Amino acid sequence: MHDDLEGLAARLRGFAQERDWERFHTPKNLVMALSGEVGELVAEFQWLTPEEAGDLDEQTLARVRDELGDVTGYLVRLADVLGVDLVAAAHAKLDDSARRYDPEVYRGSARKAPPLPP
Amino acid sequence: MHDDLEGLAARLRGFAQERDWERFHTPKNLVMALSGEVGELVAEFQWLTPEEAGDLDEQTLARVRDELGDVTGYLVRLADVLGVDLVAAAHAKLDDSARRYDPEVYRGSARKAPPLPP
Amino acid sequence: MHDDLEGLAARLRGFAQERDWERFHTPKNLVMALSGEVGELVAEFQWLTPEEAGDLDEQTLARVRDELGDVTGYLVRLADVLGVDLVAAAHAKLDDSARRYDPEVYRGSARKAPPLPP
Amino acid sequence: MHDDLEGLAARLRGFAQERDWERFHTPKNLVMALSGEVGELVAEFQWLTPEEAGDLDEQTLARVRDELGDVTGYLVRLADVLGVDLVAAAHAKLDDSARRYDPEVYRGSARKAPPLPP
Repeated sequence: MHDDLEGLAARLRGFAQERDWERFHTPKNLVMALSGEVGELVAEFQWLTPEEAGDLDEQTLARVRDELGDVTGYLVRLADVLGVDLVAAAHAKLDDSARRYDPEVYRGSARKAPPLPP
Repeated sequence: MHDDLEGLAARLRGFAQERDWERFHTPKNLVMALSGEVGELVAEFQWLTPEEAGDLDEQTLARVRDELGDVTGYLVRLADVLGVDLVAAAHAKLDDSARRYDPEVYRGSARKAPPLPP
Repeated sequence: MHDDLEGLAARLRGFAQERDWERFHTPKNLVMALSGEVGELVAEFQWLTPEEAGDLDEQTLARVRDELGDVTGYLVRLADVLGVDLVAAAHAKLDDSARRYDPEVYRGSARKAPPLPP
Repeated sequence: MHDDLEGLAARLRGFAQERDWERFHTPKNLVMALSGEVGELVAEFQWLTPEEAGDLDEQTLARVRDELGDVTGYLVRLADVLGVDLVAAAHAKLDDSARRYDPEVYRGSARKAPPLPP
């Protein structure tokens, strides 16, 4: 995976500055934009059978990649505006999940507890 | 920003493997989990005024960071399962947006066109 | 189905008035609240197999009913604030879908076109 | 408000039967479709200022009405498939909220507790 989140955040920042769109990029607006894009991503999968979703045809995968790009863009822009380090935040939540979901206890089970953590 | 998305994806993969949770991590399920976590993030902002949302108090920011961590985790896990490079996908969409939204034409305007692209 | 949407809208209006919460019930805030509640509903289904989701156990069904109640409440409150008749709006969209998806052409197919409309 | 939810549910049921789409209308799929449509509704509001959102121009209101129609359709179809009475479920949650949020204590405050209601 191409790893430069900092570079992406900087490009998004410049993009907004050049168009004087920073005033639109408030946390409330960006969180709504993120939610809207996730809705588009969900819509790509809604009518697929589990089998189809697990083996996407090329056209669907291209659309899914586009939607994932939009979701990533808004997520990174929101985090930049809020000053949050996304990868550090994800690791912190995984540290919690590792404590909470002992592999011996939760192996193979989604019922005892929602297998949160991603 | 801590930049190691690959490292995060690998940790999430291991986390699922250790608990035999890979069978739950289908694309449909992960996209639903992502959507649910984004819903929790939205809920943090829903009653705030634009001013409050633009200057979060410490407790709210801590909860927002947690939710951003969950969102990032599921997004990275979903992309790993689908074989999509999130940062490359975001840059590809930004390339499109750069062509579509000429800074001279769209400066300061959210009306002529939705200022998509983050 | 208990059919009095008008009565529900009036109760929600009174509820907000009594607590002086009308100022929080702006369209942007209510649409965010609706989105957050739908996220909680999605979370109830995310790890279930299609079979489990099609035959919910009693506890899950009770939680799902709660979430559907929250979603309905915010949807009706939002429509009331915007002056939109939800049932008329749904019928209008179904009129479109009936024209667009000829039963002879689309029978059994979710591929030719997204079987939108529910 | 046009009040016949039963009639709408019956029309949606017939619509699916005529096209042999009932197999797509599983609870997981319908909850995803609902989530996707709510995402489209959110997108209509994301860049609006609070003032603009509180006084929608005619074109935006028409699009918002369309999206509310889609959201209502999927919500009613999902409830029909699950056997849930949406209005009764909303009243039950409001009964809880009425107990939980004493008007004397919570008047005008969105901080002490999220002014959930319904």
